[in-house]
Amino acid sequence: MFTLLGTDPDSLARRGRLVTRHGTIETPIFMPVGTQGTVKSVSPDELTALHAQIILGNTYHLFIRPGMDVIRHFGGLHEFMQWNGPILTDSGGFQVFSLAKLRKITEEGVHFQSHLDGSPMFLGPREAMETQATLGSDICMLFDECPPYPCQREYAADSLARTLRWAAVCKEVPTPGLKFGIVQGSSFHDLRRESAEALVAIGFDGYAVGGVSVGEPEPEMMRAVEAAIPYLPADRPRYAMGLGTPPQMLEMIARGIDMFDCVLPTRIARNGTAFTATGTLNLKNAPFTFDKGPIEDGCTCPACRTFSRGYLRHLVKAEEILGLRLISLHNLHFYLHLMAQVRSHLEAGTFAGFRRQFVAAYKPSREPAP
Amino acid sequence: MFTLLGTDPDSLARRGRLVTRHGTIETPIFMPVGTQGTVKSVSPDELTALHAQIILGNTYHLFIRPGMDVIRHFGGLHEFMQWNGPILTDSGGFQVFSLAKLRKITEEGVHFQSHLDGSPMFLGPREAMETQATLGSDICMLFDECPPYPCQREYAADSLARTLRWAAVCKEVPTPGLKFGIVQGSSFHDLRRESAEALVAIGFDGYAVGGVSVGEPEPEMMRAVEAAIPYLPADRPRYAMGLGTPPQMLEMIARGIDMFDCVLPTRIARNGTAFTATGTLNLKNAPFTFDKGPIEDGCTCPACRTFSRGYLRHLVKAEEILGLRLISLHNLHFYLHLMAQVRSHLEAGTFAGFRRQFVAAYKPSREPAP
Repeated sequence: MFTLLGTDPDSLARRGRLVTRHGTIETPIFMPVGTQGTVKSVSPDELTALHAQIILGNTYHLFIRPGMDVIRHFGGLHEFMQWNGPILTDSGGFQVFSLAKLRKITEEGVHFQSHLDGSPMFLGPREAMETQATLGSDICMLFDECPPYPCQREYAADSLARTLRWAAVCKEVPTPGLKFGIVQGSSFHDLRRESAEALVAIGFDGYAVGGVSVGEPEPEMMRAVEAAIPYLPADRPRYAMGLGTPPQMLEMIARGIDMFDCVLPTRIARNGTAFTATGTLNLKNAPFTFDKGPIEDGCTCPACRTFSRGYLRHLVKAEEILGLRLISLHNLHFYLHLMAQVRSHLEAGTFAGFRRQFVAAYKPSREPAP
Repeated sequence: MFTLLGTDPDSLARRGRLVTRHGTIETPIFMPVGTQGTVKSVSPDELTALHAQIILGNTYHLFIRPGMDVIRHFGGLHEFMQWNGPILTDSGGFQVFSLAKLRKITEEGVHFQSHLDGSPMFLGPREAMETQATLGSDICMLFDECPPYPCQREYAADSLARTLRWAAVCKEVPTPGLKFGIVQGSSFHDLRRESAEALVAIGFDGYAVGGVSVGEPEPEMMRAVEAAIPYLPADRPRYAMGLGTPPQMLEMIARGIDMFDCVLPTRIARNGTAFTATGTLNLKNAPFTFDKGPIEDGCTCPACRTFSRGYLRHLVKAEEILGLRLISLHNLHFYLHLMAQVRSHLEAGTFAGFRRQFVAAYKPSREPAP
């Protein structure tokens, strides 16, 4: 399913290709997040025009609303939302532990209450995989516990042991799509290694590094990836879950990561903030009032081709939906185009210079990290 | 500027053509409302794809935000919002009287406080026309007072007298676009006649009926139009301001009205409500949960071509922006397509039957009238 097309001479970066039931993905790749069956404010046609190759759906949210009876009736998430490209779904584990209420963890899974109406629900490894099968996911993620940060070693070890037992259950549940394991182990490198080796022993189509971007300092996030990568096979794709900023993604790619997802492009757009190669711009700021230029010179996104910073500022200040729509399109274009640039530089053997220049030019954002 | 192409044998309905600086408008026509320099949630490209011929901008809102210094800097509203078709602007009078605070009416105009930050402002007939000139409006509306409903005769008469004195001032202020007078007179038919005759004596490029759809019963709304129409010249376009439902528009067309604007299509879309030929549908309702059909069979709008009622219901329930976007597109398409049907039937001499059938099939909405 995954073909390693080339490796960077200066880092662990890789250029790859992943074949799924709904199409082929060129890696490294960024996956726009469509939590509730839509990438926020963006239509499937617009995603296609942005050259999005794959999007992410959230099992927990779709399990709660509209529910699997609806998704089953419509023949899966692709049909329901009319997106015909690949979809990766998470397992719901992360949200069950972070969003839901009054949970009780047992060997079979997690009892929780819907964050919408408090109704009692249950997800375990079997249910999570069956749900992703119902969604028709092209890449199904294993059901895991993502421990909080910081975390005591004993809790992390117990949690990891259960997550690995769940991994064996997940392996047995048939799904139409690929299955990716998730390396956990919190900030304990030996647990990260144990997790990676155990998952590889079971054998999955790809491997994610989970439990990153959960509030830890950035160096620790990098070390978590570094602790897992050496124990993951070269011939499988690697996915860092739920991040990050543009420089973080470049640094992760240099450490051997192929796939990313992050809500940052659409989330900060709703606050009027746009990505550029030199950092983020908050378009609410007064200096943009009379600015006739685009968000970023030379950008070919639908916002920059037509609209000025001054107009976008007006839309954001007036809380007009068109403003967050246009900035969302720009930000998604920025992330997707950045990955296209990375792929080109990997093919040309010039990734090291691109990474160095990009990271040096990108000013630390005043926005919080994802 | 206006060419009367034909009249209906069975009613006062007319088929016409109005030439403006930014293009030609085929009447009867519906004008989507772009209050704050954007038709809510819709891009200019999407308006073009919907075959919108002209949109409306609100002088009061744009005067307050972003302000005329910004609009002047950008070279007008067309350039600012990147809509290259015709724009009609109201005068701000209606909003000054309905939205602003602590107003004081003098012979020169109205002192008011911005509804955004309370800052003191002034608009009079001269300032309203100059503001519309700065906006680059293709059709400028006269600055008038729209009396509340119900209204004492003495207040209505005094208000009308001042509005007519303001009309003479407005006539003298140069604007690049056409100028439309506004017939007032509340529910007093002799005042409506006086207003119409006085405006025609001054001479304008078109005439609106104002002070309708301000809370009065529907029969009274129709009578206000009927009271004005006989005194308006056949060779000028006629515009009923701020309405209405689809049957109301057909009834107004039969009474000789050529132009409409209304926030209803986009406003009720934000509540999940869609127009159909048999009345409105609230897509939040549970029966649509498993519905694979489009909002309306045979509809060619971007929502109906691709998406199901069940998916739209999910988006509305989940408060996803894509839901209100798609329903806004459908509702605007419905209004614009209805006017295209009216024009075809007027050309074919079959308007009477179309009107009768449409009004009979359209079930009274549970939505409040605009």
